[in-house]
Amino acid sequence: MAEPVSDLTKLKEHRSNMQARMELLIMKIQADFCRALESEELDDAKFSVDRWTRKEGGGGISCILEEGQVFEKAGVNISVVHGNLPTEAIKQMRARGKKLSEGGPLPFFATGVSAVIHPRNPMVPTIHFNYRYFEVTNTDGSVEWWFGGGTDLTPYYLNEGDAVHFHKALKTACDKSSKSYYPRFKKWCDDYFSIPHRGERRGIGGIFFDDLDEPNQEGAFQFVKNCAEAVIPSYVPLVQKHKNDGYGYAERQWQLLRRGRYVEFNLIYDRGTKFGLLTPGARIESILMSLPLTAKWQYMHKPETDSEESKLMNVLRNPKDWLKIEE
Amino acid sequence: MAEPVSDLTKLKEHRSNMQARMELLIMKIQADFCRALESEELDDAKFSVDRWTRKEGGGGISCILEEGQVFEKAGVNISVVHGNLPTEAIKQMRARGKKLSEGGPLPFFATGVSAVIHPRNPMVPTIHFNYRYFEVTNTDGSVEWWFGGGTDLTPYYLNEGDAVHFHKALKTACDKSSKSYYPRFKKWCDDYFSIPHRGERRGIGGIFFDDLDEPNQEGAFQFVKNCAEAVIPSYVPLVQKHKNDGYGYAERQWQLLRRGRYVEFNLIYDRGTKFGLLTPGARIESILMSLPLTAKWQYMHKPETDSEESKLMNVLRNPKDWLKIEE
Repeated sequence: MAEPVSDLTKLKEHRSNMQARMELLIMKIQADFCRALESEELDDAKFSVDRWTRKEGGGGISCILEEGQVFEKAGVNISVVHGNLPTEAIKQMRARGKKLSEGGPLPFFATGVSAVIHPRNPMVPTIHFNYRYFEVTNTDGSVEWWFGGGTDLTPYYLNEGDAVHFHKALKTACDKSSKSYYPRFKKWCDDYFSIPHRGERRGIGGIFFDDLDEPNQEGAFQFVKNCAEAVIPSYVPLVQKHKNDGYGYAERQWQLLRRGRYVEFNLIYDRGTKFGLLTPGARIESILMSLPLTAKWQYMHKPETDSEESKLMNVLRNPKDWLKIEE
Repeated sequence: MAEPVSDLTKLKEHRSNMQARMELLIMKIQADFCRALESEELDDAKFSVDRWTRKEGGGGISCILEEGQVFEKAGVNISVVHGNLPTEAIKQMRARGKKLSEGGPLPFFATGVSAVIHPRNPMVPTIHFNYRYFEVTNTDGSVEWWFGGGTDLTPYYLNEGDAVHFHKALKTACDKSSKSYYPRFKKWCDDYFSIPHRGERRGIGGIFFDDLDEPNQEGAFQFVKNCAEAVIPSYVPLVQKHKNDGYGYAERQWQLLRRGRYVEFNLIYDRGTKFGLLTPGARIESILMSLPLTAKWQYMHKPETDSEESKLMNVLRNPKDWLKIEE
C-alpha cells in the first residue's frame, strides 16, 4: 500500500529471518485485504494511505477508508516497531511465563497487522483481526519470540448461516496446524471479547490466541499465515451477500447502539488499546482507528422480546458452538 | 423527583445527622436542576424518573431527558448506598491517607448527586457536576467522613464571556468558605479532566475536590451546599443565551467529534466510572448515563488553523486562568 517500513531489498534478502518474513506477510495481508474491500465499494472509493515513523524506532502504514457507500469506516494498519521494553512491561511478561532477564530494559521487536471494518449496512457485520509477532532479546543474547492474533465478527443482526460460514473458514485454517487449535482459540476468543459490565460478548466470536511458540517458529508462522489468509474468504462473501440488503431507520439505530458497546469494549477492556495508549510515542490515531465513525448510547434501551435484535442478544449472552464440535 | 430512597419522615426527623441532611440536599438539587432544565425545553419535554434499589443496600433515582429539542441527552442521578467496603477499596483509601482499620470489610455509606447535560445546539456547552458525601465506620466504631465533588464545563465553541461567567459563579460559591478554595480546586479540575493520550483537557474546567473534611463537618457541608446551589446560576443563563443560536452541519459534526473525546475520557480515565463498573451490583445504566446520545470518531481530524474549532483546542491544550487571579 506504500513504501514498506523497512527497506524492501533488505527484507527480501533476509527471507529466512522471521522479522523480515513476518513484515513481508503483513504487508501482503494489508494490501490484499484493502484491495478486496475496495472492489466491494461503489464510486471508486479507495483507501487513503498514511505512512508514519516512530521516533523511538520503526513505524507503520495506516490505510483508511471513511464514508464509503459500503464501508462507513475501514482501517487496516501495519506496524513494525523496535526499541527497549520498559521494566514494567517486562514484569508483566514474566508474570505471563516468559523467560526474560529481570530488571533493566530489554530490546524488543514487534510487528503486526490489525484491521477493523465498520460497514454502513447494518446487515453486514463488523470484522476485526490482528496478527502479530514479538521478539525480546535477553541480557545473555538469547531471544524469546511468540505470535499472537485472532479474527472475530460483530454482527448487528444474527444470520446463523453467516456465523457458520465465518467460523468454518477459521476452523479450516486452524485445522491445517492442529485439530486442537480451533476449539481452544474459539473459547479464548469468547472469553476475551467480553464486556463484563454488560454481561455480554462483543460479537459472535472467532479465534483468539497469544504467546504462541509451538510447535516451532516455522510451524507457528505457517499457522499465523493460514489464519491471516483466511480473513478474506471468511468475510468478503458476507459483504457481497448483504451489502445491498434493505434496512430502515430502526435497524440503523440498533447498529449505532451496538457500536456504542464496541466502543465500551475497546476503550475499557481491550489490552492492545490500553497498552497502546500508555506507550510513549504511540500513534494514537492508528490505535483508535478501531472506533466506529458513529456510535450511540440510549438510556435503558432494551430490544423487544422475540425481535431480531433480541435474537442477537441471546447469542451475545450465551456464546454458541457454531460448528457443533463439542459433544 | 420521586419517593426518596430513604424514608422521608425519618430523614426530616434526623436533620442533625449528616447522612440525612446530605440526602435531603441532593434530592433538592436534583429536583431544582431538573425543573430548571425543563423550563428551557420546548414542547413540554419532561424528565422521566427511574427509581431503583440495590440489593446490597440503598438505591437511587435517575432522571433522564432524551431527544428533547434543547437537550439531546440530560441525566441527573442521585444515589444513597451502604454496605461493606471490600478490602481492596479500603487499601486504596488508606493509601490516600484515610485513617481506616486494616483488613476486613468496613461498613460504608455514600450519597451523592451527579449530572451530565448534553445539549443539542453546539453553541450550548455540556455541563457535568457531582457532589457526594462518604462515611466509613472503623472497627472501633469511629467514623471517617469526607465530601467530594465539582462542576465543570465542556463547550464545543469557545465563548470567553461564557467561560468567565461560569468560573465566576463557582468562585463566588467557593469564596464564601475560603478564598483559597477556588484557585486550588480550579487547578485540581484542570489536572483531573485531562485526556493524556490526546494532550488535551476534556473542557474548560471548573472546580474539582475530594477528601474534603475541613474546616469541620458543618463547614464542609455548607461549602458543598453552596457549590451545588451554584450550578443553576452558572449554567442555565448559558443555555438561555445560546439555545436558539444558528448552526450548521459543520458545527454539528465538530460537536459529535468532541463528544467522542468526552466518551474517551469517561471510559478510560474517569475514576467514578471505573469504580462504578467494577462495583458488584452497580447500576450500569446510571453510571453510563454520562455518555452522549451520539459521538463520532474520524481518522486524523484536525481543525483548520485560526478557525473557531482551533481556538477551542488552544484552551483545551493550555488551561486558562479565566478570572486572572494568579499574578
